[in-house]
Amino acid sequence: MNITLEQAEKIIVAAKSKSSELNTKMNIAIVDSGANLIAFARMDGAWLGSLDISIKKAKTARFFDMDTGIIGELSQPGGSLYNIEHSNNGLITFPGGIPIKDADGNVIGAIGVSGSTVENDHAVAKAGTEVI
Amino acid sequence: MNITLEQAEKIIVAAKSKSSELNTKMNIAIVDSGANLIAFARMDGAWLGSLDISIKKAKTARFFDMDTGIIGELSQPGGSLYNIEHSNNGLITFPGGIPIKDADGNVIGAIGVSGSTVENDHAVAKAGTEVI
Amino acid sequence: MNITLEQAEKIIVAAKSKSSELNTKMNIAIVDSGANLIAFARMDGAWLGSLDISIKKAKTARFFDMDTGIIGELSQPGGSLYNIEHSNNGLITFPGGIPIKDADGNVIGAIGVSGSTVENDHAVAKAGTEVI
Amino acid sequence: MNITLEQAEKIIVAAKSKSSELNTKMNIAIVDSGANLIAFARMDGAWLGSLDISIKKAKTARFFDMDTGIIGELSQPGGSLYNIEHSNNGLITFPGGIPIKDADGNVIGAIGVSGSTVENDHAVAKAGTEVI
Repeated sequence: MNITLEQAEKIIVAAKSKSSELNTKMNIAIVDSGANLIAFARMDGAWLGSLDISIKKAKTARFFDMDTGIIGELSQPGGSLYNIEHSNNGLITFPGGIPIKDADGNVIGAIGVSGSTVENDHAVAKAGTEVI
Repeated sequence: MNITLEQAEKIIVAAKSKSSELNTKMNIAIVDSGANLIAFARMDGAWLGSLDISIKKAKTARFFDMDTGIIGELSQPGGSLYNIEHSNNGLITFPGGIPIKDADGNVIGAIGVSGSTVENDHAVAKAGTEVI
Repeated sequence: MNITLEQAEKIIVAAKSKSSELNTKMNIAIVDSGANLIAFARMDGAWLGSLDISIKKAKTARFFDMDTGIIGELSQPGGSLYNIEHSNNGLITFPGGIPIKDADGNVIGAIGVSGSTVENDHAVAKAGTEVI
Repeated sequence: MNITLEQAEKIIVAAKSKSSELNTKMNIAIVDSGANLIAFARMDGAWLGSLDISIKKAKTARFFDMDTGIIGELSQPGGSLYNIEHSNNGLITFPGGIPIKDADGNVIGAIGVSGSTVENDHAVAKAGTEVI
């Protein structure tokens, strides 16, 4: 159960389209079920620092099979997962990372988007996952 | 005074059994008195991101000879050990890591468990230490 | 003077096509003039270990504006650049990385390909650069 | 297509048995198809430095779906893959890492063994793979 490159590229097309609709410039990363990069695109003029963030968001979403923003709620000071970001060579736990599931609900990979507000990042990631 | 592989494997059997009883899927890491990995098991379907966390919990517990959750109370903003997680290539300071002691109370290693809530992680780690 | 995402994606299409023609499965990475990843694709079934190698080849080619294989000739024992691979968080200096130039000969980025013999890696990278 | 923990633990039992037969003390690491650690055992008295080597051998074997020693023949000075060891956060390319295949020949993971001569390391790894 693993995402294919064809699926990953279809997701990137959809994410780029949503990003343009929102008038943003995004870094878009797709990882497979082993949390390894399968496809990536950085839109012209997108923040350079968001390159690594988008990849870390995708990995984080697959590492725990949940939206990155959910982990971020638990990793706050006093929260049960405080400073979990120090694991796995650096997690990113604000919104923009979402697991990708097949028709049967199996996690086959994840998308990570970075380049704008976390609301926009999440919206673009969501638009990407919806084509599967 | 060092944990043996036979002891470590007995601990993993107990931890897996407790994990199944709680209907969870865990990563279970055992380190020796030198804080080096001696045994490890990732249950089928356990979170990938918890692999590194379980090892870091075990190391953290042995680094300071105390439960990881205790350190986490001191590493909060304003606390005396604020952001201690930046040391040692990354500590994990929420519950799930427990020192392992011999009959005389000497620390001979530590266990780290990750894959569910911190309460479950701690319960599984505790079940592991109790067979020694 | 920087490669655009549209150009990078065109290069990836050409590289994938050449790879299929050679009956190989490749990791294909494109970096911009700042040596930062702009686009990436891992073909289904390609070696996992070639992911990092393809990115390092692209970076190496842009770091020194020459084919990676040329650097590899100079980095041998006794050579003038012996063990240069230790710099920049790891270089890869065997063939498969090629600078990408615009019509005026300016370097606007680089491609790195990994997944087969170094001869095939280089051929696929070359096919990619030829569409610009 | 992924190795199960039960399979990985059976492999470790076989590898420990072969190691004892050879009068050696080994570090034995098993990774899954995503090159992530699934099980590990360090025999009492085994070299500490071999812990990391065993894990890197297992990852290297899965990264390229071949015995680690084969890569080592190509990564010598003047060889086509010279200094490939700088990729993927460090490869180990001498014998002791072997891919694990299912009955249909699909790679489902890999084993890495370190703690003695490379001949013994390889023999123990091979004994491990043979129980699948």
